[in-house]
Amino acid sequence: MKKIEAIIRPEKLEKVSDALIEKGYHAMTVSDVRGRGAQRGVALQFRGKEIMVNLIPKVKIEIVISEEATEEIIEIISQNAYTGKNGDGKIFLYEVEKTINVRSE
Amino acid sequence: MKKIEAIIRPEKLEKVSDALIEKGYHAMTVSDVRGRGAQRGVALQFRGKEIMVNLIPKVKIEIVISEEATEEIIEIISQNAYTGKNGDGKIFLYEVEKTINVRSE
Amino acid sequence: MKKIEAIIRPEKLEKVSDALIEKGYHAMTVSDVRGRGAQRGVALQFRGKEIMVNLIPKVKIEIVISEEATEEIIEIISQNAYTGKNGDGKIFLYEVEKTINVRSE
Ligand SMILES: Nc1ncnc2c1ncn2[C@@H]1O[C@H](COP(=O)(O)OP(=O)(O)OP(=O)(O)O)[C@@H](O)[C@H]1O
Ligand SMILES: Nc1ncnc2c1ncn2[C@@H]1O[C@H](COP(=O)(O)OP(=O)(O)OP(=O)(O)O)[C@@H](O)[C@H]1O
Ligand SMILES: Nc1ncnc2c1ncn2[C@@H]1O[C@H](COP(=O)(O)OP(=O)(O)OP(=O)(O)O)[C@@H](O)[C@H]1O
Ligand SMILES: [Mg+2]
Ligand SMILES: [Mg+2]
Ligand SMILES: [Mg+2]
Repeated sequence: MKKIEAIIRPEKLEKVSDALIEKGYHAMTVSDVRGRGAQRGVALQFRGKEIMVNLIPKVKIEIVISEEATEEIIEIISQNAYTGKNGDGKIFLYEVEKTINVRSE
Repeated sequence: MKKIEAIIRPEKLEKVSDALIEKGYHAMTVSDVRGRGAQRGVALQFRGKEIMVNLIPKVKIEIVISEEATEEIIEIISQNAYTGKNGDGKIFLYEVEKTINVRSE
Repeated sequence: MKKIEAIIRPEKLEKVSDALIEKGYHAMTVSDVRGRGAQRGVALQFRGKEIMVNLIPKVKIEIVISEEATEEIIEIISQNAYTGKNGDGKIFLYEVEKTINVRSE
């Protein structure tokens, strides 16, 4: 099994989530994070002034899935999280050694 | 070393935590997440109406531990997070390459 | 690629973050967690009384980086998160199989 960890714009979560469900990928865990990529922070307009925000709110999606499905899921996330501007997000892939379902243990 | 990542019902955290402490397993990191498993969302009763909740609040427990202890910890978490209904949770196991203690570095 | 996961005191985040930026390491993801290490909980003074807190607020920093940089980053985090007292934090290292940039996919 593999874990796909995607860090995307919060405003893209619903679109990504809907696209995954449509393709039959329901299971996921979501959490609120903040971060920065290659550009450090970002200049935001706040009450007419420009302020530098160091860590920008993002959403982390985690999906544990069989190896065969990883390519398709990465594709779905990438396409639906995309705007073309800096900060669209990153996807990381990890090996999962074992998966246990608490209910059927 | 291994990392055990358990995503369980928030209302089971205390029971799981107490059971782990009782067996001598103190160290853990906890975070608030939301998620769905095989059933997508869940129908909840809210002010007499049924509403569909897409992502359900869960708690993530992370424990980094020696390989020998993983079986027992997974067992403790499973038993104490169990209700028998959908949504009891999932446990994932990962390899950890290295562990550093900041104080004694 | 590797993932460095550091769980440190929230009040050390800025110092660690500044030190990383100074050395050219900008990219990171931060989240709020709570946890305990070998000492279970901690006795805190609250309105003149001592209360036991089971899970202490911490901050998790995640950095995905090339293998060559891991040593230096672990060193920077350790030095800047250090107080010498229990609870300074832990750093865990994981293998990352693949990294995708959403914008340039
Ligand atoms: N190397 C990294 N390690 C950990 N988290 C990262 C890393 N790179 C990016 N992130 C997380 O992903 C979020 C989005 O990153 P972002 O899309 O800005 O990456 P980038 O490399 O700067 O690409 P771009 O040039 O397209 O902006 C960041 O806010 C951060 O939370
Ligand atoms: N494949 C997965 N990837 C990531 N997170 C998952 C996955 N499956 C479950 N989770 C997380 O675990 C939580 C609990 O999942 P749940 O117990 O409902 O799993 P399930 O496979 O649907 O099992 P059950 O049929 O017993 O409900 C979810 O809310 C989600 O946060
Ligand atoms: N084995 C572990 N698994 C998961 N998280 C851990 C583990 N050990 C520590 N942590 C996390 O790191 C935080 C800081 O741990 P801490 O520095 O107290 O570790 P420690 O082993 O008790 O070292 P010290 O004796 O220096 O206090 C904890 O609050 C917890 O969130
Ligand atoms: Mg960027
Ligand atoms: Mg379920
Ligand atoms: Mg400690």
